Amino acid sequence: MTAADPILASDTWLARTGPEEHVVVSSRARYARNLPGLPFPMRARPEELAAVAERVAAAVSVHPRFRDGYHLELPGLTPGERTYLKENLLISPEMEKGNEHRAIFLSPDIALAVMINEEDHLRLYALDAGFRLNEVLNAVIALESDLAKSLGFAFSPKFGYLTACPTNTGTGLRASVMVHLPGMVASKQMAEFAKSMPQLGLTVRGFYGENSDHIGDFFQISNEITLGKSEEEIVQAVCHVVERVIEREEQARRSIFEQSRGAAEDEVWRAYGILTHARSMSSDEAVRLLSRLRYGVDRGFFPALSHGELNRLIIAVQPGHLQYGRGAIGPAERDALRAELLRARLASRPSNN
Amino acid sequence: MTAADPILASDTWLARTGPEEHVVVSSRARYARNLPGLPFPMRARPEELAAVAERVAAAVSVHPRFRDGYHLELPGLTPGERTYLKENLLISPEMEKGNEHRAIFLSPDIALAVMINEEDHLRLYALDAGFRLNEVLNAVIALESDLAKSLGFAFSPKFGYLTACPTNTGTGLRASVMVHLPGMVASKQMAEFAKSMPQLGLTVRGFYGENSDHIGDFFQISNEITLGKSEEEIVQAVCHVVERVIEREEQARRSIFEQSRGAAEDEVWRAYGILTHARSMSSDEAVRLLSRLRYGVDRGFFPALSHGELNRLIIAVQPGHLQYGRGAIGPAERDALRAELLRARLASRPSNN
Repeated sequence: MTAADPILASDTWLARTGPEEHVVVSSRARYARNLPGLPFPMRARPEELAAVAERVAAAVSVHPRFRDGYHLELPGLTPGERTYLKENLLISPEMEKGNEHRAIFLSPDIALAVMINEEDHLRLYALDAGFRLNEVLNAVIALESDLAKSLGFAFSPKFGYLTACPTNTGTGLRASVMVHLPGMVASKQMAEFAKSMPQLGLTVRGFYGENSDHIGDFFQISNEITLGKSEEEIVQAVCHVVERVIEREEQARRSIFEQSRGAAEDEVWRAYGILTHARSMSSDEAVRLLSRLRYGVDRGFFPALSHGELNRLIIAVQPGHLQYGRGAIGPAERDALRAELLRARLASRPSNN
Repeated sequence: MTAADPILASDTWLARTGPEEHVVVSSRARYARNLPGLPFPMRARPEELAAVAERVAAAVSVHPRFRDGYHLELPGLTPGERTYLKENLLISPEMEKGNEHRAIFLSPDIALAVMINEEDHLRLYALDAGFRLNEVLNAVIALESDLAKSLGFAFSPKFGYLTACPTNTGTGLRASVMVHLPGMVASKQMAEFAKSMPQLGLTVRGFYGENSDHIGDFFQISNEITLGKSEEEIVQAVCHVVERVIEREEQARRSIFEQSRGAAEDEVWRAYGILTHARSMSSDEAVRLLSRLRYGVDRGFFPALSHGELNRLIIAVQPGHLQYGRGAIGPAERDALRAELLRARLASRPSNN
């Protein structure tokens, strides 16, 4: 099991349905953990990284959730495969670099993962579509507890779990949800909303996490601080904000359709018209227009189109996905392929135009 | 015959097919004529205008080409009807004002017309779709010759036919063609082209003539000077330029498709996607997008769509056409009706998307 092909060939996990999927695209909980007596990856020598990878792999490969799953050694993957995994939100931009002794284990249902030798020795995460933060928290708690028995993670009674970056010290937990907020963006609520996050110990990031722009009105909301709080308190805080966000977003969408129904419907249908007819399209424009269609899915304009299908398309139009398996193609050819893919996937589905 | 309804209900003459219709939308030849012994309309008293109208009507109504045609007294039409006629390019903006003793006679096939008491006592014109300047010239020459027998137009051996504005003195002929030049606009040839016209005694105007902007890459090319030249020389000069324009426009379209076929096709299909899906559209945007479709008609993208149908749509989306017969509607409602009309007319026709 070293080829990424089975994952790459399968549909992305984002295509699943989940609670509150009209606003919440996905939920994720991850733990940062390290082995005692070995330096953090950034300061480790190659043989130390190799030792980490070997010990973690031994523990994970016998875990029942990873039976029949995937064990991918990052340096063994092509750059295209790594980009593909990053665009699917399965590995971080850091892992995409493919340095020596980096690996990822994925459960067969792509719901549970262990990244080895990223910033920390281990990054364990559980993820699912929709608003399921408690479920993914429980899944990653169970995994951590199982692996702790054989690996015995580095822990200080004073600071909690020790991590390469101090912001992860403590529980080492990051709970995050990806939300789609076209209503709040259109009604210009996002700046004020983002500003209110730090005082709650939370932060707002773009589609691909830290340092990524917000594209298509997608945002990740997660906890900033892991020290001095229990897992339950952290998840509680994120859940509380996400529940408020869902309400505000629903209210914003209602207001938009009440106050300027014609303009809002016009925007959705124009997006659909362009997506189903253009011959060339950048990934930014594609995501922006697909984002508009979510409105229309909510309003029943596209009975054959689900939120999951839109999520899948947003991933499918990313450069690495279009490039994958095609050899060297230039930007113009990629933009043409993207438009072709969108026409094929969307134009065949009935709409209420 | 005082109601405009029969004309308004019929499809516009622009929907006809004609030679070189991919570039030349229509051809028109008009004579300015005045009755001797009566002041020009601008300086005439009401009873003088009434006398002009009566004498001209008597002559025109017995002319065989106007049998079963239309005799419309402008003050008797509603503002909506007058706007409708102007948008159909049948009356001038000046006639649209509907002042007393103004009238228009139209032949049943809307190919020949006499406007009474516009700037001159008579404006006779012949018009048709496509590049048919010699044909419309011959038609208006024949009409003028017939009417001259009973009306005896004001003529000076030195200046030729006398007209209210000196620029029309001489033959009183204006020969004009409406051309569609998206290729020359896109390749930025229009400024230089327009600049070269005066030295040929010609001028370039917008879709609705003098003082109208060029919308959707439509232009009217016509002679500026009528003095010191014969009808044949005038028409010859316009024809010569139009023939060159057709060549240049064809060359420009070929270059665009050769040099950036993808971008050109993309532009056509995006226009079609928006036209068949938008819920609200201004008339300027509609004309601009319909103008793009002409490219696609040339390339066989829309087998069920003709240049005539596009011409008809360009008129049908004008504010007065949408307003007509609907009572008081606001701009937002009009924009919604326009989008609805475009979807109904275009979406039902098969395309090669």
